[in-house]
Amino acid sequence: MNATSFHTFSETYKQLIELKIIEYVEELKAPDNLKAAMAYSLKAGGKRIRPLLVLAVLDAFAKDLNAGVPTAAAIEMIHTYSLIHDDLPAMDDDDLRRGKPTNHKVFGEATAILAGDALLTYSFQLIANTEHPDVTPEMKLNLILEIAKAAGAEGMVGGQVADMEGENKQLSLEELQYIHEHKTGKLLMASVLSGAILSGASAEQIHALKQFSYHLGLAFQIRDDILDIEGSEGEIGKPVGSDTGNNKSTYPSLLTLTGAKVRLAEHIKMAHKELAKTQLDTVLLNEITDMIAKRKS
Amino acid sequence: MNATSFHTFSETYKQLIELKIIEYVEELKAPDNLKAAMAYSLKAGGKRIRPLLVLAVLDAFAKDLNAGVPTAAAIEMIHTYSLIHDDLPAMDDDDLRRGKPTNHKVFGEATAILAGDALLTYSFQLIANTEHPDVTPEMKLNLILEIAKAAGAEGMVGGQVADMEGENKQLSLEELQYIHEHKTGKLLMASVLSGAILSGASAEQIHALKQFSYHLGLAFQIRDDILDIEGSEGEIGKPVGSDTGNNKSTYPSLLTLTGAKVRLAEHIKMAHKELAKTQLDTVLLNEITDMIAKRKS
Repeated sequence: MNATSFHTFSETYKQLIELKIIEYVEELKAPDNLKAAMAYSLKAGGKRIRPLLVLAVLDAFAKDLNAGVPTAAAIEMIHTYSLIHDDLPAMDDDDLRRGKPTNHKVFGEATAILAGDALLTYSFQLIANTEHPDVTPEMKLNLILEIAKAAGAEGMVGGQVADMEGENKQLSLEELQYIHEHKTGKLLMASVLSGAILSGASAEQIHALKQFSYHLGLAFQIRDDILDIEGSEGEIGKPVGSDTGNNKSTYPSLLTLTGAKVRLAEHIKMAHKELAKTQLDTVLLNEITDMIAKRKS
Repeated sequence: MNATSFHTFSETYKQLIELKIIEYVEELKAPDNLKAAMAYSLKAGGKRIRPLLVLAVLDAFAKDLNAGVPTAAAIEMIHTYSLIHDDLPAMDDDDLRRGKPTNHKVFGEATAILAGDALLTYSFQLIANTEHPDVTPEMKLNLILEIAKAAGAEGMVGGQVADMEGENKQLSLEELQYIHEHKTGKLLMASVLSGAILSGASAEQIHALKQFSYHLGLAFQIRDDILDIEGSEGEIGKPVGSDTGNNKSTYPSLLTLTGAKVRLAEHIKMAHKELAKTQLDTVLLNEITDMIAKRKS
């Protein structure tokens, strides 16, 4: 696998993950409408960056990527549930997500809330249920622990609350960074960490991979803010400049557009530097990093 | 512990669980407002029947009850998150719960949704994090698996969707039973099953305890429906007759009030019968069963 080009890896495993998450939902004995709502948002596309990170770390350790499939799918389900709940009228009140009607626009608010709840719950079931010779009970518990921490009050959900509280306020760079570290950073970090746990990484490697994903997460968010100014609506799937309109603090608004680009380049450089410390074959992780720096959507 | 009267057991462990769940929330490094919203609904009272069931099963096996505390707290958190989400304007739109303003009335809808999400996520973290000499990694994984199944699309959330779909429709007894088995029954069953898993119960004992909790869950729901007709508003904390007003199918509406009472007595009898099969000292479980049959709120 190590010699595989990033393009082949990304296409192959994106497709595999997209197949598996739908398969997992199909297997449920549950009301059809609930399953349809869960599948609708899982099918809505996206870069699948989190599952690809899980698998790319396993690849760096030359491990069997199948060991990571349930966890990769679980993390994508958590990400998807968070989008469904974020889009609700009580939260961001978004009608479109990736150019398609949001979950509650199609299934109604009540079902959208419950579809999110079901995806979150199912994610832990999938990890606990992993059957693969490389995956020990201790690993599964460690995955559940780290992913729950990253997704919950101390991670993503906490970041979401901080984000809401920061709306229509002038934030400092530290406050903005806190929000992003939690709202998007922690789950990206948990994806990388999950790959490391499943690979039996050393403490030093885990430290470097955490630092790597810290920089990757911030780079991801800065790129998002830059795209909101420079991107085209068709490419990013939401109205360009919507952050500015909301009076939201962003990296460009705090650092200027040029300053944000400099900051982005610094985080990308640091991400590569941390990867080098692992002494692994990180060709895929390096390519994911560059893709994040340059992405158009 | 086996000689302890039910009253002492219930008072002691209700208090312990109520202390522990707040302590667990206090420990979180998260925005204050989020923690306040989580704690608000956890503190709102209730019978704590689910955590008491976990501990009463451990007691029947003469095990150290401390082994069950994180799981008992986790299940109460899942129950609480489900109440917060059920009360939302998009769902049941309730202003009061146990006589107090509902979560979204105090903290707003967005924070209420996120507090529910955080409680659900935290519950799995707490189980994975259990530190007790009697609790093996395999047990923890089994707990997570069974509780996630009971709480998710195949259990509570699926029952909630079926309940919504059945509103303003004349349901058959089978349909009504499906809803209750899933919406409330599965998590009650998971509470009993969790105690059994933590006690290293035999397959026969697990079978009998599952049957016990099946009857207990239905008895619980039938009693709820009867209370809705016979109870006083002060005692049950919601307007009496609110089910009838909603045009909801209930056991009394399908079986008559007398018929529902007969059915309740049958399930209580069966519950005791299944308990006897376990050949354990089930004094506490027998008393919980009788309490459910006779409860006034």
